[in-house]
Amino acid sequence: MSTLPKGFRGDMPNGFNPASVESLDSKTREHIERRSRLLGPAYRLFYAQPLRIARGAGVYLYDDAGDEYLDAYNNVVSVGHAHPRVTAAISRQLDTLCTHTRYMQDGILRYAEKLLATFEGEIGAGHTMFTCTGSEANDLAMRIARHHTGNEGVIVTSEAYHGNSGVTSSFSPSLGKRSALGPMVRTVPPPDSYRIVPEHIGRWMADNVAQQIEDIKRHGGGLAAFIVDSLFSSDGLYSHPVDVLKPVAEVVRSAGGLFIADEVQCGFGRSGTHMWGHRRHGVDPDIVTLGKPMGNGYPVAGVVVRSDVVASFGRDMRYFNTFGGNSVAIAAAEATLNVIQDEGLMANATRVGKIILDGLTSIAAKYEQIGDVRGTGLYFGVELVKDRKTKASDIDTGLAIVNRLRQRRVLISATGADANVLKIRPPLVFTEADADRLLTEIEASFASL
Amino acid sequence: MSTLPKGFRGDMPNGFNPASVESLDSKTREHIERRSRLLGPAYRLFYAQPLRIARGAGVYLYDDAGDEYLDAYNNVVSVGHAHPRVTAAISRQLDTLCTHTRYMQDGILRYAEKLLATFEGEIGAGHTMFTCTGSEANDLAMRIARHHTGNEGVIVTSEAYHGNSGVTSSFSPSLGKRSALGPMVRTVPPPDSYRIVPEHIGRWMADNVAQQIEDIKRHGGGLAAFIVDSLFSSDGLYSHPVDVLKPVAEVVRSAGGLFIADEVQCGFGRSGTHMWGHRRHGVDPDIVTLGKPMGNGYPVAGVVVRSDVVASFGRDMRYFNTFGGNSVAIAAAEATLNVIQDEGLMANATRVGKIILDGLTSIAAKYEQIGDVRGTGLYFGVELVKDRKTKASDIDTGLAIVNRLRQRRVLISATGADANVLKIRPPLVFTEADADRLLTEIEASFASL
Repeated sequence: MSTLPKGFRGDMPNGFNPASVESLDSKTREHIERRSRLLGPAYRLFYAQPLRIARGAGVYLYDDAGDEYLDAYNNVVSVGHAHPRVTAAISRQLDTLCTHTRYMQDGILRYAEKLLATFEGEIGAGHTMFTCTGSEANDLAMRIARHHTGNEGVIVTSEAYHGNSGVTSSFSPSLGKRSALGPMVRTVPPPDSYRIVPEHIGRWMADNVAQQIEDIKRHGGGLAAFIVDSLFSSDGLYSHPVDVLKPVAEVVRSAGGLFIADEVQCGFGRSGTHMWGHRRHGVDPDIVTLGKPMGNGYPVAGVVVRSDVVASFGRDMRYFNTFGGNSVAIAAAEATLNVIQDEGLMANATRVGKIILDGLTSIAAKYEQIGDVRGTGLYFGVELVKDRKTKASDIDTGLAIVNRLRQRRVLISATGADANVLKIRPPLVFTEADADRLLTEIEASFASL
Repeated sequence: MSTLPKGFRGDMPNGFNPASVESLDSKTREHIERRSRLLGPAYRLFYAQPLRIARGAGVYLYDDAGDEYLDAYNNVVSVGHAHPRVTAAISRQLDTLCTHTRYMQDGILRYAEKLLATFEGEIGAGHTMFTCTGSEANDLAMRIARHHTGNEGVIVTSEAYHGNSGVTSSFSPSLGKRSALGPMVRTVPPPDSYRIVPEHIGRWMADNVAQQIEDIKRHGGGLAAFIVDSLFSSDGLYSHPVDVLKPVAEVVRSAGGLFIADEVQCGFGRSGTHMWGHRRHGVDPDIVTLGKPMGNGYPVAGVVVRSDVVASFGRDMRYFNTFGGNSVAIAAAEATLNVIQDEGLMANATRVGKIILDGLTSIAAKYEQIGDVRGTGLYFGVELVKDRKTKASDIDTGLAIVNRLRQRRVLISATGADANVLKIRPPLVFTEADADRLLTEIEASFASL
C-alpha cells in the first residue's frame, strides 16, 4: 500500500495511488474499480487505504461497518456534521420555496445584511454577491477585478489554490506543473516563517510582489489583483507573523491592482481570533471571497466587494447564477452563521485550539522529525523534516503519520509544496475531549514510527 | 413602469428597469432599494413590476400576499416546486451524511450508473463528473476539450449562453456586447427556421461552421469545440428541424474539434420525446453537460464524457469540486431522476406539450403579431413580429405580453436576440388543466393589447 509516488505533484498530498489497488481487500478494490469506470481518471481518493464513509454526526464520521472516526480534517462542516439547526433550516426551506434571485425574497437581504455586518472598514459598506462554490467566487472576483482595472495580471503564492474553473486554475499553481498558469500570472514564495527571519517577512514579501509587478509590466501587462489566502493553507499553513500582508497590500495598491482576500479556507471564524483571516493582518481588501464552510456543506459561496470596485462591472454586465443565493442556499448560510455566533464557536476555536497547539508543541519537543508547529484557532500545520538543521522536507514521515492516524481512526491530511506538513483542521465544535483524543493518537503515531 | 430600454442588450430580456422604480408601490420600492444597496448593481429582477415570492408547490408560486401564480417558466424545478420525494430524499441525506468525493460512497456510483444508462452510443460507456452548476460543467467541459485537442478555438451560436464563469462567459455572446468574447471564439447564426428554408438549414449551418473554423485557422488557432444547446434556447428557441446538427458535427470532427452538447436547458426530458436534446438530432457528442433541473433546485450539475476524450486530462490534472457530487447533491439528483422516470414526466411533457402547441397555433391564427410558434415537449417559443411579411421583430409586444401575463398571474419570459420570442417552459408536471389556464390567459393577454 502506498500513497502517490514522490514528485508526482500534478497529483495531491495524501492521494490514494491507484497503482496499489491490489493490496486492498476485495470489497474496496471492487468499489475503486467501479468508481474508476464510472467517474473516470480525474477523481482522487484520500489515504493509502481509502475510507468508505456512511454517516456523520458532530465531529465524527462512521464507515459502513459502523466504526467511528474522529474528523480533524473537514472544515466544510464547520459547525459539525449534520448539525440539527442547519439541517432543519434547510429542510424547512425546501418544503417552502427554492427559487432564484430574479424574484424578490426577504431572506437573501436579511442574510446579506447580517453577513456584511461582520466586515470592518469600507468593504462592510459594500455589496455581497452569491455563487455556489469558492471556485465560482474567485472566478467572479477576478472577472470583476479585471474589468475594474482593465488589466490581466495576477500574483499568487507559489503553491496557492484558488479554484477548479478555467480562470481560477490558471492562477492555482498547486494544481501541478501540468496545469498551465496564465500568461500574465506570476507567483511569489509564501511567507515561510520556519525558514525566513520573521522580522523581515512582510517587507521581503512586498519586495517579491513588487518584482513580479515589474515583470508583468515588462511583458506589456498590468496588475489586476493579488489574491491570497491569509493562512497560506496550500503553501504549508503560515499562520504567523501577522504583519506580512499590509506592506504587500500597499505595493499592490500603488501599482493600481486590487487586493483580494480569499477567505474560503480561513474565513467564518476558523482562525479563532477573527471572523475573517485578512483582519489578522489588518488589511482592508477590495474584494473578499467566501466558500467552503458558508452553508456547512450546502453549495453556497460568495463575493463581498467594495461598491466602487463593482460599479463598472455592474453597469456593463449582468450576473446571474441559477442556484447562487437561491432560497435554500440562503437558509443554510443563515443557519450556519447563526450557529457560529450563538454557540460561540470562535471562542471555542481559540480555547480548544490553544490546547491542541500546546499539545503539538509538547509532542514536537519529543520527536526530532517535527521541525515546526504552526497554527491559529482550529487550523494547524506540523512540518516534518529529515534534519532540524537543514530543514529538508520529510515527505515519507508526513504521509506515514497521516496514514497511521487514519488506521487509528483519526482523520487529518497533508499540505505544502512537498506534502510534508500535517494539515489539521477539525470542525469548530471540537471539544477538549476531542483535542485530547487527537493529541493522544498523534503522539502514538509518532511513537510507532 | 417599463422593462429595460430597447437596445440595452448588455442587460436581459424581461429585466426590470431600475430607472422606473418610482412607479412602484412603496413596499416594493423599499425592497428594491435595499436590495440594490446590499447586492449591488449586477443583479437583475424579472418583470416591469417585480414579484415577491414566498412559497412554491407543484406548478404554483405564491407571493407574500398569498396570491397564486401559474409557473410556466421555471425549468429548474422540473418535477415541480417542493416535490415531496425530492425534499424528503435531501432531508434524509442531510441528517445522515453530507461529504465529498474523496471518501468512497455508494450513492454516487449508483447514480452515475443510472445516469450513464440514459445515454446512447459511445458516451454512455464513458464517465460522469460532478460540478455544482451548469456554468461549472461547461467550464470543465471546455478545459477537457482544450486539453484533449491542444486547441483554443470555440464556435457557438450568435446568442448562445453557456455560463457565467470567466471562461464560459467568453463564449456566451448573449451576455451582451460589453462582455468580451475570447480571441479564438467565433459565432455562427442559429438555425432560424422561421427565416431560413428548412430543407437547407443543416447544410447551411455546417457551411457557416466550416467558414469559422477556417477563420480560426487563419488566425493561427485550431478548433477545440463546437458547443451548442440543441434547442437554441437563448437564440430564440429553434426546436425544428432536427436534421441540423449532424452535418455540423461532421464538419467539427473532421477539423479535429469536439462536439459538446450543452443539455443544461434541453436535457432531462424537457423535449418530451428524448431524455437528451442532442438525440433529437441523432448526434453522438464527445462531451455532454448537465445542469439546471438535475437536482430540482439543489445545486448539482455535471459532465458526461467519452473515456478517450478525458484520458489525458485525467492523467495530467486532478479534478476536485468540494460540493460537486457531495452526498446530498447525489441524493437530490437521484430522487429527481427517479421522479422523472416513475411519474412518466417525458410522456406527460409530450401529451400536455401537444395541447399547448396546438393551442398556441390556434391563437397565432387570430393575432397578426404572432409570426411563428415553435416547440417540443414543454418548451415553446412564440415569435412576435411587426409584420408577417418583413418578419421584423416586435420587442414591445413581446414584453407587453410577458408583463400582462404576470399581471394575470401567469409566469413566462422572453428570449432571442431581440427579446421578441415568448419563452414558455413550465415544470414537467404541468397538467391539461394548467395548459388550459395558460392558453386562456395568453389569449386574453393578446386580446387586451
